[in-house]
Amino acid sequence: MKMSEGVEWAVHSCLNLAWVGPAGAVTATQLAAFYDLPTAYFNKQLQALARAGIVTSTPGPRGGFRLARVPEQITLLDVVRAIEGPTPAFRCTEIRQRGPGAQAPENYLLPCAIAHAMGRAEQAWQQSLADQPIADVDADVARTAPTAAETTRRWFDSQRA
Amino acid sequence: MKMSEGVEWAVHSCLNLAWVGPAGAVTATQLAAFYDLPTAYFNKQLQALARAGIVTSTPGPRGGFRLARVPEQITLLDVVRAIEGPTPAFRCTEIRQRGPGAQAPENYLLPCAIAHAMGRAEQAWQQSLADQPIADVDADVARTAPTAAETTRRWFDSQRA
Repeated sequence: MKMSEGVEWAVHSCLNLAWVGPAGAVTATQLAAFYDLPTAYFNKQLQALARAGIVTSTPGPRGGFRLARVPEQITLLDVVRAIEGPTPAFRCTEIRQRGPGAQAPENYLLPCAIAHAMGRAEQAWQQSLADQPIADVDADVARTAPTAAETTRRWFDSQRA
Repeated sequence: MKMSEGVEWAVHSCLNLAWVGPAGAVTATQLAAFYDLPTAYFNKQLQALARAGIVTSTPGPRGGFRLARVPEQITLLDVVRAIEGPTPAFRCTEIRQRGPGAQAPENYLLPCAIAHAMGRAEQAWQQSLADQPIADVDADVARTAPTAAETTRRWFDSQRA
């Protein structure tokens, strides 16, 4: 079970946009260049973030991407959902209804207890992601890598100069 | 992000072994036949469960698989780990250390705040799986599909007769 590496790119990019702030728009090329990311593939993630209403893009020579909301109002769940989609990791294929033990359909009106149990765990995972806005991750970066925000902001500013 | 369908097969098979009980050993062929599962691929999952100490197999004409522990002592996390391995779904590739914003290695002694935040969510998922033993799932099946255990037991008994 593996999450797309696009999730790592997307969360980092949201943080970078938070650090640049609403005054400055950042191009997809600049965002990709900051981590040497493959531009075409990264563009897809950016488009997914835009479709999910996490970033907005403005056209034109001074245009680019900005966060669509303040970092307090963008959660890790928003970003993960935008990149990974809403489909749960555990997908019940109803094998209980297959084979020699299969019974009449009216015996399967309630969801499979296994799917229910697995779903409960995914809900705990989602709740934890939903409880962590980008602003909290930012605060944790400030504690663990105190120069990151300023270094990042300065590089993006230099690109727009 | 998708979990292997082997997880569904493995949890159902653990439940089936729980219903058959410790007195009866069940062959891999019988376990696979009960849900029309592809035998070779399913055997790999059974071997993984055996390596993880969740099932034991005895050789010989009356041999087969049994649960290695009572269902109260096998959690969903045990089964998921056996099939999916211990690697987390989110895998930090340290992109923060790449590109023009990269700083000297001594700035990265602490884990990335994003990896930390994603890890916290995976821990919530794992904790929920660890809190749910197969015995609890069994109790939920008894409530939602009351004939399943008896039907299953009878079919496996008929195969050994």
